[in-house]
Amino acid sequence: AVAAPAIAQSSPEVKWRLTSSFPKSLDTIYGGAEYMAKQVSEMTDGKFQIQVFAAGEIVPALQALDATQNGTVEACHTVSYYYVGKDPTFAIAASVPFGLNARQQNSWLFQGGGNELFNEFYKKYSVIGVPCGNTGTQMGGWFRKEIKTSADLNGLKMRIGGIAGQVLQKLGTVPQQIGGGDIYPALEKGTIDAAEWVGPYDDEKLGFNKVAPYYYYPGWWEGGPTVHAFFNQEKFNALPKHYQSILTNACVNANTWMQARYDMQNPGALKRLVGAGVQLRPFPQEVMEACLKASNELYAEISAKNEDFKKAINAMVAYRNEEYLWFQVAEFTFDNFMIRARARG
Amino acid sequence: AVAAPAIAQSSPEVKWRLTSSFPKSLDTIYGGAEYMAKQVSEMTDGKFQIQVFAAGEIVPALQALDATQNGTVEACHTVSYYYVGKDPTFAIAASVPFGLNARQQNSWLFQGGGNELFNEFYKKYSVIGVPCGNTGTQMGGWFRKEIKTSADLNGLKMRIGGIAGQVLQKLGTVPQQIGGGDIYPALEKGTIDAAEWVGPYDDEKLGFNKVAPYYYYPGWWEGGPTVHAFFNQEKFNALPKHYQSILTNACVNANTWMQARYDMQNPGALKRLVGAGVQLRPFPQEVMEACLKASNELYAEISAKNEDFKKAINAMVAYRNEEYLWFQVAEFTFDNFMIRARARG
Repeated sequence: AVAAPAIAQSSPEVKWRLTSSFPKSLDTIYGGAEYMAKQVSEMTDGKFQIQVFAAGEIVPALQALDATQNGTVEACHTVSYYYVGKDPTFAIAASVPFGLNARQQNSWLFQGGGNELFNEFYKKYSVIGVPCGNTGTQMGGWFRKEIKTSADLNGLKMRIGGIAGQVLQKLGTVPQQIGGGDIYPALEKGTIDAAEWVGPYDDEKLGFNKVAPYYYYPGWWEGGPTVHAFFNQEKFNALPKHYQSILTNACVNANTWMQARYDMQNPGALKRLVGAGVQLRPFPQEVMEACLKASNELYAEISAKNEDFKKAINAMVAYRNEEYLWFQVAEFTFDNFMIRARARG
Repeated sequence: AVAAPAIAQSSPEVKWRLTSSFPKSLDTIYGGAEYMAKQVSEMTDGKFQIQVFAAGEIVPALQALDATQNGTVEACHTVSYYYVGKDPTFAIAASVPFGLNARQQNSWLFQGGGNELFNEFYKKYSVIGVPCGNTGTQMGGWFRKEIKTSADLNGLKMRIGGIAGQVLQKLGTVPQQIGGGDIYPALEKGTIDAAEWVGPYDDEKLGFNKVAPYYYYPGWWEGGPTVHAFFNQEKFNALPKHYQSILTNACVNANTWMQARYDMQNPGALKRLVGAGVQLRPFPQEVMEACLKASNELYAEISAKNEDFKKAINAMVAYRNEEYLWFQVAEFTFDNFMIRARARG
């Protein structure tokens, strides 16, 4: 029953700026922030407005966290692993090699203590982080030549960053940091031999298939990467409590929205790419094994000198081992049957 | 920047009642509604209160939709497939045999036109439906004897309802409708031979392992069942627009919450069950094939006489085939590797 007349409420007009780490052309990952802002506006009857700026409009893509920390903007939408240069612990909140798939990542962050663990860590940077998007398992990227054994990774110049780049370095790969727009010409000229980006929907736009015909999977370094919204701690704490709740709910909604939208868009893009002659290849088992071994070595090395990293990676690995114990039963068996039944038509 | 002083806003006090189809003992599926209501209260500074009632407190479990339709309550939290007696189309919005997994279900409903399709259908019942929970792929249930071939399903008395029961009938199974509390004694006495419930976390509480040692997977009739919140259309439309948005956002948040919580709780329960001597068994491939064939036959039969069903099942099947085309690449290959790596320790 709608009772009582409208009464005065402490719902002030608030205007925030959010800087995204993504260009507008990556409409789904960029769009997650716009979708979130739209929800906040609708839930507050237009009182709480968050204006979303693309990467570079206020600060460059990879300075989104700093801009939020120092109060240049109230919020950003970014991937925590972009900040491994500050501390490798940042990566674990998003995705590390051989980490969690998207659903497990949600379970860990929302119900397994993950968000609490990382928000304790984020305090050092005066920000609060809330999951606000996921891409699902990404692709392993575009290669000019086939990868038949882990020896083929030796000497390979690959556009790949962060922890995954460090893992591949152990196998002799030379990781390269190259912005999205510069990847195509570098692959074309042979300045690099391989490049990872996102998945079929985003990759298709950049046309990599014309210059690197082998499209590998899975992107073992991104089993289910979380995209975060970060809020300046002081600005967030100054909000009325119900605005804080509205903001958080909008992020969780956007977290689902982005995954659902990628899952809607990827199948068509994959079909078009394969139709255009792309050579789809799984990484050979031996290559996967070598990369897993290198990842575990790297985690041990970093853990030996970084307590925050050690705590977070141990928590993630323990959660992962529990999750796959369960996922291998009903989930995986169901998917396996459905995939085989589909292939038969 | 927090600008402007607090101003009067049209945020009336609203009190709603929501009837759940679940008992409080199923704390995660029941808890989804309480979590949703808590979000709504927090986002409205306590102005919009939704009181959650367990099954039977206002109306019995399976009358939740009717009570919402006729305005006895403003809302309910239930599974759409409980209402197949009214129209089998209801089932497709939740889960049908060999349907979508949980993430695909989200993608279809939120981004693939699913919610729009079902809300057009739900208009006949004067309700609006919003996804508000998922369990993930359920288990195939508890059996007193092993199932080695589809012939073993012939004559089997199994506690299973809805569309799945009709599919199994084609294989000679005798489906039984039994409430949660009566399953254990029926299995113990041998009045029934098998019973399906949910998954390890919920099943463990009922102690089925003591009377039916074989625990089969996957529950091919529930690859990723959506739990819905339904709102009385007139009551929903009478809400201020920002309350409507708050309600919807809270449901999407609860949709993630329930899945994340089941994924957190199921691994431990599975380990305890196996530790207690449960015989974990996959349904043999031939059994799965026979059930898929029977499902497709049933869908064709119902489609021949029900246009709403035909439209919805065709949309689901088309979406499913697209989704598994994509999932078999990066997602499945990643999970497959992780499961094998885990098993090796």
